[in-house]
Amino acid sequence: MKISELVETSGVPLPTVKYYLREGLLPPGRSTGRTRAEYGDEHVHRLAVIRALIEVVGLSVQQVRTILALIETAPRSPAELFDVLGRAVGTLTDASQPAPAEDYPRARAALERLGQLYDPRYAAVAQLERALAAAEAAGVPATPERIDVYGAAMRQVAQFDLEEIPEEPAAAVEYAVVGTAVHGPVLAALRRLAHQDLAAQRLGITGAE
Amino acid sequence: MKISELVETSGVPLPTVKYYLREGLLPPGRSTGRTRAEYGDEHVHRLAVIRALIEVVGLSVQQVRTILALIETAPRSPAELFDVLGRAVGTLTDASQPAPAEDYPRARAALERLGQLYDPRYAAVAQLERALAAAEAAGVPATPERIDVYGAAMRQVAQFDLEEIPEEPAAAVEYAVVGTAVHGPVLAALRRLAHQDLAAQRLGITGAE
Repeated sequence: MKISELVETSGVPLPTVKYYLREGLLPPGRSTGRTRAEYGDEHVHRLAVIRALIEVVGLSVQQVRTILALIETAPRSPAELFDVLGRAVGTLTDASQPAPAEDYPRARAALERLGQLYDPRYAAVAQLERALAAAEAAGVPATPERIDVYGAAMRQVAQFDLEEIPEEPAAAVEYAVVGTAVHGPVLAALRRLAHQDLAAQRLGITGAE
Repeated sequence: MKISELVETSGVPLPTVKYYLREGLLPPGRSTGRTRAEYGDEHVHRLAVIRALIEVVGLSVQQVRTILALIETAPRSPAELFDVLGRAVGTLTDASQPAPAEDYPRARAALERLGQLYDPRYAAVAQLERALAAAEAAGVPATPERIDVYGAAMRQVAQFDLEEIPEEPAAAVEYAVVGTAVHGPVLAALRRLAHQDLAAQRLGITGAE
C-alpha cells in the first residue's frame, strides 16, 4: 500500500508516520520509485504497537526504540529469551527510579514468603521494594497476610498471561511488553470495580446485585 | 510539638510544610503565641498521607485537596459513605480522561460476564472501557477468558482490601484512597515477579526454584 493508504488504514496522521520513519521506529517501506515506497501489513501492525506504547502506556520515543530493538534481536536459547524478556519488560519501569541497590529487604521478605525467586538484578524487585516502602510510608503497610493474598492472585494472573505467550521469540517479546503494559490498567480498573461491587453489597446499596 | 520538631519527625522540609499550610492541605497548629503554634500527631499523620499521595501516587496538590476535603466530610449513612468512597477513589483517575459517555460497551460486556454491577456513572467503568479499548488497539484484546481470570483474581484482592477497611467513616475514606493507590504498584510488581518466576521455571533457567 502507499503511504496515504497506510495513514488511512492505521489512523496515524501522515506527519506522525514520517516522524516515526525518521526516528527509525518504523522500518522504511519497499522502495518503488524515487519518492515512492510500498508498505505492508507489518507496518500497520508496527504502528499499532508504537501508538499503544506511546499513547496508551505513556512510554517515551526512546523507551519504544529500546523495546523495538529488543523485539528485533532473535534470542537463540531459552536463557537468552528469558534475559531479553526481562530487559524488555524492565523498560516499562519508571525511568526516575534511583540507582540499583545491593539488597531489597522488603521485597526479599515478600518473595521468600511466597516461595519465589529473589534476584536483586530484576527491575521488578526494585519496583516491589519501592512500592512496599511507599505503602509503609503512607501508613498502610503491606502485611504478610496481604502479600499472601496479593501474591496468590497475581500468580493466577501471571499463569494465564504466560499460557497465552506466543512460541516465536520476537512475538513473545512483543506480547510480554505490550501485554504487561496494557493489561495492567485492565487489572487496576477491575480491582476498583470489585471494590465497588463488594462495598455496595456490604453497605446494602440498592441496585447492587 | 513546635514546627521545627514537626519537620524533624515527619522528614518533610520546612518550606514544604509551610507551603502545605498555606495551601490548606495541612490544618494550622494550635496557636501558642503571636508567631508560634503547637502541632500534634495528627499533623505528622496528615503529612505522611499528603507525601504519599503527591510523591508516591503522583497526584497534584489540587487532587490531594479534593481527597482531604472528602476525608473531612462525615458521611452519615451507608449510601453517603458509598458515594464519598466512590468520589474519593475517583479522584485517582487520570485527569486527562475524556468526558463521560452514555455507555461503555466493552466494560458493560465484561461486568455482565463477571456478574457485577454496571453503572456508567462510576469513574472506574470509564477507566475499564479505556483500558479494554487500549488493549484491543494494541493487538492484545482482553478475551472473555482473560476477563474471567483477571476478574476472579481482582475479586480476591478486593475482598481482602475490604476486610481491612476501618469502621470509622473518615478513616475508611482515607484507607480506600491511600490503599487503592499505594497497593496498586505492589500488585503490578508482584505480577511481573510472578511472570519471571513462572518463565524461569518454564524455560528451565538455573537458579529458579
